[in-house]
Amino acid sequence: MSTDPLVVFTPSGKRGRFPVGTPVLTAARQLGVDLDSVCGGRGICSKCQITPSYGEFPKHGVTVADDALSEWNKVEQRYDDKRGLTPGRRLGCQAQVMGDIVIDVPPESQVHKQVVRKRAEARDIVMNPSTRLYYVEVEEPDMHEPSGDLERLVKALEHQWDIKGVEADLNILHVMQPVLRKGGWKVTVAVHGGNASQSPKIMHIWPGYYEGKIYGLAVDLGSTTIAAHLCDLADGEVIASSGIMNPQIRFGEDLMSRVSYSMMNADGANEMTRAVREGMNALFDQIAEQAEIEKTLIVDAVFVCNPVMHHLFLGIDPFELGQAPFALGTSSSLNLRAAELDLKIHPSARVYILPCIAGHVGADAAAVALSEAPDKSEDLVLVVDVGTNAEILLGNKDKVLACSSPTGPAFEGAQISSGQRAAPGAIERVEIDPVTKVARFRVIGCDLWSDDDGFAEATATTGITGICGSGIIEMVAEMRINGIVDGPGLIGAPEQTGSDKCFLDGRTYSYMVWDGSADGGPTITVTNRDIREIQMAKAALYSGARLLMDKFGVDNVDRVVLAGAFGAHISPKHAMVLGMIPDAPLDKVTSAGNAAGTGARIALLNTEARGEIEQTVQNIHKIETAIEPRFQEHFVNASNIPNSVEPFPILQTVVTLPDVNFNTGGGDGGGDDGGRRRRRRRA
Amino acid sequence: MSTDPLVVFTPSGKRGRFPVGTPVLTAARQLGVDLDSVCGGRGICSKCQITPSYGEFPKHGVTVADDALSEWNKVEQRYDDKRGLTPGRRLGCQAQVMGDIVIDVPPESQVHKQVVRKRAEARDIVMNPSTRLYYVEVEEPDMHEPSGDLERLVKALEHQWDIKGVEADLNILHVMQPVLRKGGWKVTVAVHGGNASQSPKIMHIWPGYYEGKIYGLAVDLGSTTIAAHLCDLADGEVIASSGIMNPQIRFGEDLMSRVSYSMMNADGANEMTRAVREGMNALFDQIAEQAEIEKTLIVDAVFVCNPVMHHLFLGIDPFELGQAPFALGTSSSLNLRAAELDLKIHPSARVYILPCIAGHVGADAAAVALSEAPDKSEDLVLVVDVGTNAEILLGNKDKVLACSSPTGPAFEGAQISSGQRAAPGAIERVEIDPVTKVARFRVIGCDLWSDDDGFAEATATTGITGICGSGIIEMVAEMRINGIVDGPGLIGAPEQTGSDKCFLDGRTYSYMVWDGSADGGPTITVTNRDIREIQMAKAALYSGARLLMDKFGVDNVDRVVLAGAFGAHISPKHAMVLGMIPDAPLDKVTSAGNAAGTGARIALLNTEARGEIEQTVQNIHKIETAIEPRFQEHFVNASNIPNSVEPFPILQTVVTLPDVNFNTGGGDGGGDDGGRRRRRRRA
Repeated sequence: MSTDPLVVFTPSGKRGRFPVGTPVLTAARQLGVDLDSVCGGRGICSKCQITPSYGEFPKHGVTVADDALSEWNKVEQRYDDKRGLTPGRRLGCQAQVMGDIVIDVPPESQVHKQVVRKRAEARDIVMNPSTRLYYVEVEEPDMHEPSGDLERLVKALEHQWDIKGVEADLNILHVMQPVLRKGGWKVTVAVHGGNASQSPKIMHIWPGYYEGKIYGLAVDLGSTTIAAHLCDLADGEVIASSGIMNPQIRFGEDLMSRVSYSMMNADGANEMTRAVREGMNALFDQIAEQAEIEKTLIVDAVFVCNPVMHHLFLGIDPFELGQAPFALGTSSSLNLRAAELDLKIHPSARVYILPCIAGHVGADAAAVALSEAPDKSEDLVLVVDVGTNAEILLGNKDKVLACSSPTGPAFEGAQISSGQRAAPGAIERVEIDPVTKVARFRVIGCDLWSDDDGFAEATATTGITGICGSGIIEMVAEMRINGIVDGPGLIGAPEQTGSDKCFLDGRTYSYMVWDGSADGGPTITVTNRDIREIQMAKAALYSGARLLMDKFGVDNVDRVVLAGAFGAHISPKHAMVLGMIPDAPLDKVTSAGNAAGTGARIALLNTEARGEIEQTVQNIHKIETAIEPRFQEHFVNASNIPNSVEPFPILQTVVTLPDVNFNTGGGDGGGDDGGRRRRRRRA
Repeated sequence: MSTDPLVVFTPSGKRGRFPVGTPVLTAARQLGVDLDSVCGGRGICSKCQITPSYGEFPKHGVTVADDALSEWNKVEQRYDDKRGLTPGRRLGCQAQVMGDIVIDVPPESQVHKQVVRKRAEARDIVMNPSTRLYYVEVEEPDMHEPSGDLERLVKALEHQWDIKGVEADLNILHVMQPVLRKGGWKVTVAVHGGNASQSPKIMHIWPGYYEGKIYGLAVDLGSTTIAAHLCDLADGEVIASSGIMNPQIRFGEDLMSRVSYSMMNADGANEMTRAVREGMNALFDQIAEQAEIEKTLIVDAVFVCNPVMHHLFLGIDPFELGQAPFALGTSSSLNLRAAELDLKIHPSARVYILPCIAGHVGADAAAVALSEAPDKSEDLVLVVDVGTNAEILLGNKDKVLACSSPTGPAFEGAQISSGQRAAPGAIERVEIDPVTKVARFRVIGCDLWSDDDGFAEATATTGITGICGSGIIEMVAEMRINGIVDGPGLIGAPEQTGSDKCFLDGRTYSYMVWDGSADGGPTITVTNRDIREIQMAKAALYSGARLLMDKFGVDNVDRVVLAGAFGAHISPKHAMVLGMIPDAPLDKVTSAGNAAGTGARIALLNTEARGEIEQTVQNIHKIETAIEPRFQEHFVNASNIPNSVEPFPILQTVVTLPDVNFNTGGGDGGGDDGGRRRRRRRA
């Protein structure tokens, strides 16, 4: 029986016996314990910090004596003097096993450290980035055994780090020889781990031990905005975030107008490709400046986008996406190099683009699926990413369905008379007094309600400029709750609604939200046309979800996740009043924030997640709304605004809904109430 | 026992039984018979032509009846009408097996057809190019099962051609969708087969069946000239050949002056990189124009070059190659894309650069090794590639040694008073009359000797402009044979040599080859300084070869191969008189022509040869002349010009060599006769 000391690692619980004098890092590596190191145990990088525990550990069956590790040594002292070591910590490469010992690996010393996500229902991200730093000592050249400097560097990576078949891009060859000599044949390299179709590649090289960081970009390329997170590739921290308007907007507000632009103009698609790439570079400049880093330290980038943005970014004419059968040029994930897309980050930076699900359901939807993981959900979850197009996922661990629905830009404040993008001064929250029928509201950038004292002063600089997407949803829902608009979507006259805020505006009535004209300010109204736009948008969204439920064979979902920047701001209560989304208990309706961006970040920080989402996308069953007769049917039926709020307990204390109907044509307009009434009948 | 018909293929001898009605192409595929097809058996490409044989075949144990194949069909008739089918030929995809049959696959119907090399001792090249054409029928897009057009194309390649994991470069995605539709979902693609670190890639796409060709370039990038062969990638035929001067010459004539230029000028290496790449593009323009093809049809290119050219072409500063230990940036073979080297051929054309052997023995030497295959030789072969640097290989199937020797540019006519590059008007062949001591010669561009009738008229347009490399070797050797120059290298006075063509020229004597001054033409002389230059060059070459022989432990080689354009023109007899190369029977001294260029062509046409030479280079033992004391020793000893020609039977009838020695310092100058005398002593 071995009398070698027993080493127990926590939290993994891995254990083994090692000869006296074995460095802790060596023991960890042999047991496959997740203990980081960049310098390979040379006492330089300090990534292998561990916390030894002493005393009795009945749980582990070990008693740890005070001298269970070798004494604090010079290397540790030097490091402590220079940078400070947390008390109780040792360097795993220096401390040697002398007796039975329990060793804790703190989270920050783990290679696969976790990036904790803030939402309770979301999985943490396990760090497994494409590119990592390695310190190596390279053999010097020898005339008797001639070999290239690169070949000896590659050999060092294989011998010292067990990384096989590494290659170098040409631009590494351009700088490598002087760097090797400057570092005295000791260098730090950033190595991209490769994938099924690419060998591992040396991405960057520094003389000696490089103490800095390397970065990756997670980019959400939307039709309207491009948003990027700059992440530290070692610990996943978001170093900087930034966004710009998509410069393609000048070619058309929505996707189809951009597809049209490419059809109508010989060089149209190329113009838009150049525009988005230039915009991307401007954004990267901005984010690097904000983070105060060199752009060449950005060695990896992940992109998510809808199919039209995807094609235009890649330089593929989106022509085919504008007509049935909506054939994508390519649906697979793509591994490219930054230079191929004219991106000015590290010259050989890798670019990963998530797979597209279908001609209308893009890499952004795949990213939402990666972030929200409906395919891993025990209960049935409906994930709705609300944008100019809504991508909708419905599923659980047995099956996931996906579709896209053309909601149009109304939810983003466009095509609404007083609408605007979410910006300071925009109305974002609304309540209508059930008695006075007067709206009170809050604007972005101010915490006060419009009827609070000091509101005028607090909004003096921003003004009250319009209504943003989340504001219009609350507004229309509140108007419906308070009997100002009826089920089919007509705004009533003052005598019908009991509100003098209603006024004749051409052939229909409008509702006055805010009249700032006395002070030279704007008048903010909701017109009947605005109601129509919102009805169209919400009907499209609802019909898509409803179609997926039909296909799944269910009438209810267990929970609803609202994704997208817009989804983060809308009120679940009002969304359900409006009939945007199917019924669900209010506490089961959550916001995932920018789930597409989060999915991009997951793919950036964990390369295994790339393979995972590629597989998931293969298994997602795609539904094409354009050819589903039931979608049209649902759409027609869903244009009404529900006139009952019974299912929502939160509302039960608030109002008794007046049973109004201003539709002069009488009846229900042939439509139902967005499916709610029918389902109640079934129940 | 099967009663299915027996099918015997010749020349392979492969045989098997197949059900009646099996197309011959199908039978061939199942037996692994090398029968070409681009259209996959659809009767479009006609690549699968076969010749059935009828009658008794005792050797095969088969009697073939007249109706052993199905009748000539419409598809064959249509092809014959349109393009003509050689009588007796059938299309393998149309003709079906009806009875026992013997089928010959003619060479041009084989995928791995052979490119016959002209030299008796050289192996033929078996076609196995990187990139081949495939005709596929692609599934149309289906909204119910959305997938990208590329993914369906990839699937078609897998199902119809068993090519797995194909990827497409971005530029294919840019053009693919309209091409698929134009071809009615039938397209021809050029697919690069990939390698260990790269997946197969779609390189090009055409609507329908593409009847044209695709091409590759084999490029020999020399310090002085860049030469390229444009090859048909289907049958290996050289379609066009062209060459230009290396534009880097303006930065320095020889390698070391270019290394110096990069050391002395901040942007020097980059300037030279740009120059050579621009030159390369000019050459490619020229060759494409000559062949009347689109440059985008060039999808593969192979480059060979010495290490300094290699580094400058890649954009690596050759600084380290200018000083010990002569460390290469990289020595491995490289798989790159044309765009990475700014080469304007097909945008995603692949570039393969052969491995370098050592800091002074480049990819050009590797190419010579591939062409001349010393590692496969039964007898001991010395391969000498003569250029500004001579690369020398010595070996047999047991072992191969390599070194490089700095011969300088004298063999190329540089640094010789009347020297010039090989061009019309340059003296290339020389004989000195043993009695009159007068030189007769021939110039490039004229078949007459200078003392033939009509010579003046025949050379009127070119003139007599100087002496090229092969001319100067013959000249000096003839001068030595005829006692005009002595062993240590001094030209004698008229009274010593008996030739009034010798004249005092400063402090030493010169020899008048041609005095055209009476007619206003040039005077062409050989000065004693010229002799010194040639002595240095030949001593360097000889010493390198001799050093390898020492290392190999031999005093003789079985045969000598002279490689390089220059090697093709020099007279083995005179080279041996001069002491350039070790002794060998004259009929065992052969010229391989531009073996480096041939090696490039082999690597272009047969991708397996790439792996082969990579392995060979690993096994070649490199000798660094700069640090071998014996090299210096040999060099000193080899500066004399041998004064005996006994070993050469061809000379025995020609002269009795006068035993002269004009060295006023007396004796042998400490040197021997280039090793010949010493070896005779040993013998």
